[in-house]
Amino acid sequence: MQEYGEGEALAPLRVGVAGLGNVGATLVRILQKDGADLKRKLGRQLEVVAVAARSRSRDRGIDISGLQWFDDPVALAKSDGIDLFVELIGGEDGPAFAAVKAALEIGRPVVTANKALLAKHGVALAKLAEESGTQLGFEAAVAGGIPVIKTLREGLGSARIAKVFGIMNGTCNYILTRMGNEDISFADCLKDAQALGYAEADPTFDVEGFDTAHKLSILSTLCFGYEIAPEKIRVEGISRITQQDIRVAADLGYKIKLLGIAQRTEHGIEQRVHPTFVPRGSAIAGVDGVMNAVALETDHVHELLLAGPGAGGPPTASSVLSDMLDIARGTKVPPLGVPSAELMPYVEAPMRAHEGGYYIRFNAKDVPGALASIATRMSEHSISIDSVIQRSDLNAKTVAADGSATRTVVMITQQTLESSVRETLAQIAADGFIVGEPQVIRIEAL
Amino acid sequence: MQEYGEGEALAPLRVGVAGLGNVGATLVRILQKDGADLKRKLGRQLEVVAVAARSRSRDRGIDISGLQWFDDPVALAKSDGIDLFVELIGGEDGPAFAAVKAALEIGRPVVTANKALLAKHGVALAKLAEESGTQLGFEAAVAGGIPVIKTLREGLGSARIAKVFGIMNGTCNYILTRMGNEDISFADCLKDAQALGYAEADPTFDVEGFDTAHKLSILSTLCFGYEIAPEKIRVEGISRITQQDIRVAADLGYKIKLLGIAQRTEHGIEQRVHPTFVPRGSAIAGVDGVMNAVALETDHVHELLLAGPGAGGPPTASSVLSDMLDIARGTKVPPLGVPSAELMPYVEAPMRAHEGGYYIRFNAKDVPGALASIATRMSEHSISIDSVIQRSDLNAKTVAADGSATRTVVMITQQTLESSVRETLAQIAADGFIVGEPQVIRIEAL
Repeated sequence: MQEYGEGEALAPLRVGVAGLGNVGATLVRILQKDGADLKRKLGRQLEVVAVAARSRSRDRGIDISGLQWFDDPVALAKSDGIDLFVELIGGEDGPAFAAVKAALEIGRPVVTANKALLAKHGVALAKLAEESGTQLGFEAAVAGGIPVIKTLREGLGSARIAKVFGIMNGTCNYILTRMGNEDISFADCLKDAQALGYAEADPTFDVEGFDTAHKLSILSTLCFGYEIAPEKIRVEGISRITQQDIRVAADLGYKIKLLGIAQRTEHGIEQRVHPTFVPRGSAIAGVDGVMNAVALETDHVHELLLAGPGAGGPPTASSVLSDMLDIARGTKVPPLGVPSAELMPYVEAPMRAHEGGYYIRFNAKDVPGALASIATRMSEHSISIDSVIQRSDLNAKTVAADGSATRTVVMITQQTLESSVRETLAQIAADGFIVGEPQVIRIEAL
Repeated sequence: MQEYGEGEALAPLRVGVAGLGNVGATLVRILQKDGADLKRKLGRQLEVVAVAARSRSRDRGIDISGLQWFDDPVALAKSDGIDLFVELIGGEDGPAFAAVKAALEIGRPVVTANKALLAKHGVALAKLAEESGTQLGFEAAVAGGIPVIKTLREGLGSARIAKVFGIMNGTCNYILTRMGNEDISFADCLKDAQALGYAEADPTFDVEGFDTAHKLSILSTLCFGYEIAPEKIRVEGISRITQQDIRVAADLGYKIKLLGIAQRTEHGIEQRVHPTFVPRGSAIAGVDGVMNAVALETDHVHELLLAGPGAGGPPTASSVLSDMLDIARGTKVPPLGVPSAELMPYVEAPMRAHEGGYYIRFNAKDVPGALASIATRMSEHSISIDSVIQRSDLNAKTVAADGSATRTVVMITQQTLESSVRETLAQIAADGFIVGEPQVIRIEAL
């Protein structure tokens, strides 16, 4: 381990990069361009000496002619010619997992931007790094250019975290922002996002919330010291959000954001990803477009908000590089904040025990007694209603099966239990006064 | 230096704390209360064993009976009984400086929350730490509970910073927020802030911007690698801001915030502290009350915003503790980001070369030709006017020396040079159509 101020030049740190997509190519370019600056900062050269990717000949706008080429990322990870392995291949298994595992097994430090890999194998990989006495950095895996991993792991001292929540998917935030600003449908916004390269051809992973769940599971482990458990997260995406929902939210002083939320409760850790009503004046409501943000509520620090770019080659490469600098300096921290042996099995707070406000939108049949019936069911379950909105301009074009017209009825509840809401809605459906599934969106006071 | 995962217990890290005010007492309380949690995280006990303060008998709500007592912080700093010295005395010279220096000289790591000390002696102290091969942490010195030092020093990889700016004084932000929300005068808000403990009996250091300048000088050094130079910063406070200014700002879609701003320009580094028009929809405009925020514009990460509590015992103690944890883990980073020998002498960009938009408020004499004369002078210096506001409800109650009434005239300029504005205003004053000093507030586009 080097010490600064020793006055002698340290050997260059030889880096192998597997995966030369946008982030990988940007990283190589930054290291080639800013190498001298970094050496001045670090007292040590960081030098990419070898790369692995699928196509050797593809034009990536960087010169790789002087670098050793590997077809097999595992062979690169194990090569004697490198001191640090950077994995930018992606995917939760396959070559990414094999290569990262191979490097850690021989005690070679690894930096990765792969959230899926971390969400699935994070605990095992952290354990492997600790056993080999080496490092595993993954700053870029969550919220691209925002240094949230470092902040959670090292920046907050002993602050006990009560809640972490954030906007961690740029595709969803872009779509919701445009729906809010321009009164366009989800489908049309998605098409634009795809055209602009903000959404994949198959957008399911992003728009249905799974990407956010992967990231949340990593943050939650760093915050609460429980094992990573993305499969236990309650996930709802944004594809059912309508222009109606967005307009009513705006009328009531809210914006709709896809949030990942993890919080301590008396029942365990509640982890959930869903569209959320957030107050228009709150800091998180101001995070628009492809921006990401992570907010923390702690005992000692109260609330902290970090906002910035969640994706893109340069921000993500910058986060990869910050891990590389830590490794070059010899910084050693347990990858998941506490030694992996100290992680506790995840204790899931059941979603039914969630308490909060709810936005509920019904298509009610336009017959006498519909509203009264819905309101009665609510009251039977002691659900207090904060506002009821029934206006002709909100009415959807749906008709009931018997051909009668419907009216849109929106109710905003006060604090109530998720289980009460679910039971009430089941009874309301059975009563036969509504058409289709009600839209239910949780409200966060923040 | 310890390694995690070695499976053997490390000796406790013995801590000496000098200064038992709010932050010091909170720190001792946290370490006494959360000691077991921290040990689990760190694999090592962090134990306060000795303290120094002015009064031994004062009730601080903590039990110091088991701790070694020192009347002299320098003696504590040099004591063989501690491994880490924490300075929470405050003040740029005197016992704080003597004790920190004494500890670093014998190679003992130091953590301090003392921005004045850092602003004045930071370079010398960093050099001393490097020469002794020890650490100097000061996360708590800027923006209390926001981990901005760590983010700048370690979290941003190689991202080249173009601009750093922020709200770094809670007193000023509280006053400006209340003036904006409730239409109260500066003097009345200040009185309330004093009553609530948000402002000192002598508020000059805070409200005239000097506290912000100290903090900015530290951030600027971390961002740009120049020596710390608070005395070179152009500083304007908020005591001349009127309700008129706040109202016109709101009408035009702005809020007024006291910002510290440092940015690269072709002339060097421009550092300035002054009330600033910021667009109402910008992220920084949403940071209200005693909250602080620091924003960064970089090549690779674009914009990053960190917002949170800027002061208070628990947030500040949490930042002190995060430095202590880094030291306990053996993390070693040059205190100022680059080795102090690599710091460059500060190259000051002259304020006259600043380019931006300006809000200028005149008390113009209510005589024919006043507005024409002002407008002509502007045009002679090629200053383009974006808006002119002259409304009877804005008129101040001032009268000219000859007894005639005055009218308030506000002009918003487009991008222009500070030197042009200054020359123009000098000529306008000489023309004799205005009364008193015009109010000049810079606009940041953000």
